[in-house]
Amino acid sequence: MIRISVADVGEFGLIARVVARLPQGPTSLLGPGDDGAVVTAPDGRVVASTDLLVEGVHFRRDWSTAYDVGRRAAAANLADIVAMGATPTALLVGLAAPPTLAVEWAERFADGLRDECDPLGASVVGGDVVRSEVLTLAVTALGDLGGRAPVTRAGARPGDSVVVAGRLGHSAAGLALLRAGHPDDPVVAAYRCPSPPYAAGLALAAAGATAMIDVSDGLLADLRHLAAASGVHIEIETRRFPRDAELGRVAELLGRHPFEWVLIGGEDHAFVACLPAEAELPAGCRWVGRVFSGAGGVRVIGWQPRGTRMGFDHFGAEQ
Amino acid sequence: MIRISVADVGEFGLIARVVARLPQGPTSLLGPGDDGAVVTAPDGRVVASTDLLVEGVHFRRDWSTAYDVGRRAAAANLADIVAMGATPTALLVGLAAPPTLAVEWAERFADGLRDECDPLGASVVGGDVVRSEVLTLAVTALGDLGGRAPVTRAGARPGDSVVVAGRLGHSAAGLALLRAGHPDDPVVAAYRCPSPPYAAGLALAAAGATAMIDVSDGLLADLRHLAAASGVHIEIETRRFPRDAELGRVAELLGRHPFEWVLIGGEDHAFVACLPAEAELPAGCRWVGRVFSGAGGVRVIGWQPRGTRMGFDHFGAEQ
Repeated sequence: MIRISVADVGEFGLIARVVARLPQGPTSLLGPGDDGAVVTAPDGRVVASTDLLVEGVHFRRDWSTAYDVGRRAAAANLADIVAMGATPTALLVGLAAPPTLAVEWAERFADGLRDECDPLGASVVGGDVVRSEVLTLAVTALGDLGGRAPVTRAGARPGDSVVVAGRLGHSAAGLALLRAGHPDDPVVAAYRCPSPPYAAGLALAAAGATAMIDVSDGLLADLRHLAAASGVHIEIETRRFPRDAELGRVAELLGRHPFEWVLIGGEDHAFVACLPAEAELPAGCRWVGRVFSGAGGVRVIGWQPRGTRMGFDHFGAEQ
Repeated sequence: MIRISVADVGEFGLIARVVARLPQGPTSLLGPGDDGAVVTAPDGRVVASTDLLVEGVHFRRDWSTAYDVGRRAAAANLADIVAMGATPTALLVGLAAPPTLAVEWAERFADGLRDECDPLGASVVGGDVVRSEVLTLAVTALGDLGGRAPVTRAGARPGDSVVVAGRLGHSAAGLALLRAGHPDDPVVAAYRCPSPPYAAGLALAAAGATAMIDVSDGLLADLRHLAAASGVHIEIETRRFPRDAELGRVAELLGRHPFEWVLIGGEDHAFVACLPAEAELPAGCRWVGRVFSGAGGVRVIGWQPRGTRMGFDHFGAEQ
């Protein structure tokens, strides 16, 4: 089999091959190929979020397929849009690639982006392709609020319930398995390709969430961001988290406690929201704590994390 | 003087310092600090464009100040929005930086972004900061069409005039001066900090431009993109380009012909548009050619470029 590199097909050849794999949905009024894309914004406001993913820092090609990297890069950004209470409409994706990168890698990466967007009705509407010695992905997501106020981190009020939608700790457990040399454990899939509970996130917004954040830095770290932005104190109870047989098995295998991953692990892109106490809990969500008045901090009732590493700082911590 | 690095202040310290320099204008409904920004999109559609800039490929820190890199990165993206006939509203900016990067570099970069956005009423509304061995910038721009149809590359019709707004060739001449060891020549400023004629670009859209593109790959290369997308033949006359004393001086200094830079040099972010023959030429624009029926190609009447390098391919040509 002849392996065709990005340098073999050139910038415009690569763009043509990638774009051919990216169908345009109804929110894309003008897709790739012009100076800019045109995307529907029926609300009259647009929500936008951007992330960079760097090989060796955010992903490893020997740990994840190109398809998984595409799914994961899209999921991280689409979850940010949903965490604002908005429906994702579009992605724009920059690819900085070494000339030796296989064209197939870029194509499968595009497939992953597409498949993560598609169920939400979003499309990859544009991007950029450049040369770099370090494979780097830049993803921007857009979304529409559908007439609702954005759900920020700053709106939590004393008395609100703290609610989680989606799985926590699996991505960190998967990463720990990879580091420990267990690449074939099924939990590794949660690291390679997280599954943000998009529908539950949007249901939390519709149910009147006063504040919401997607869990990317870790539940405690992200709750601290939320508590600080809202100027409230938050207490969560670890006994409210369901017993998770898969996490328990991995924790035993690696000599860890599952709550390390549930409370401190990041990148599951679950949603944690504050809901007025009287609001009905949407399907797929569970009560884990409560908001109190007081200076922005988070207290864990139950299992206590040890050590001081309480989240991810890009310049202070190694992956 | 103590030089503070990105690693010294950490991810969140860096974000706080950068965000403090980014005032939010009227199009920013929610700026940095949440999962996503919220930007006005009164037209009900949003125009979006994204670019990656990689150190050593798109800029050199010994050739450009951080402020200039910020101005240039913003200009390239804002020009894409204007080339669609839209008014820029917002930038989102990803910064992938080595831990040793001086915080001051990031701050001055942000100042450059801000100063390029500000006269247009746009703001830097969000971004991302990550670690990378290669300094890499990801810029996404958003814009509003104000009720007009987008001006694509595909709408040129036989009989249209071909019109240029803005200076051509100065960025390439500036780059040639840097390469030849003349960093203090005043024309280098056009490379370090291009000045897209935003107002003239928007005036071309308002005057009924049938197609428009910003000159980033080079006038001939970009006209070929436009001719191919529109399925037309384009002829331009080099005698229509004004005599440019500065370019002439640099060309003489370096033993080059100024039209090499005018026709083939990129990154001036001038605008080239097709206008119905009866449309009035907006201020700051000049007639340079005409659109004919025929297969998508471009013919130059007058001075002929030599050689085959007719634009920039990221994987086929060196900078």
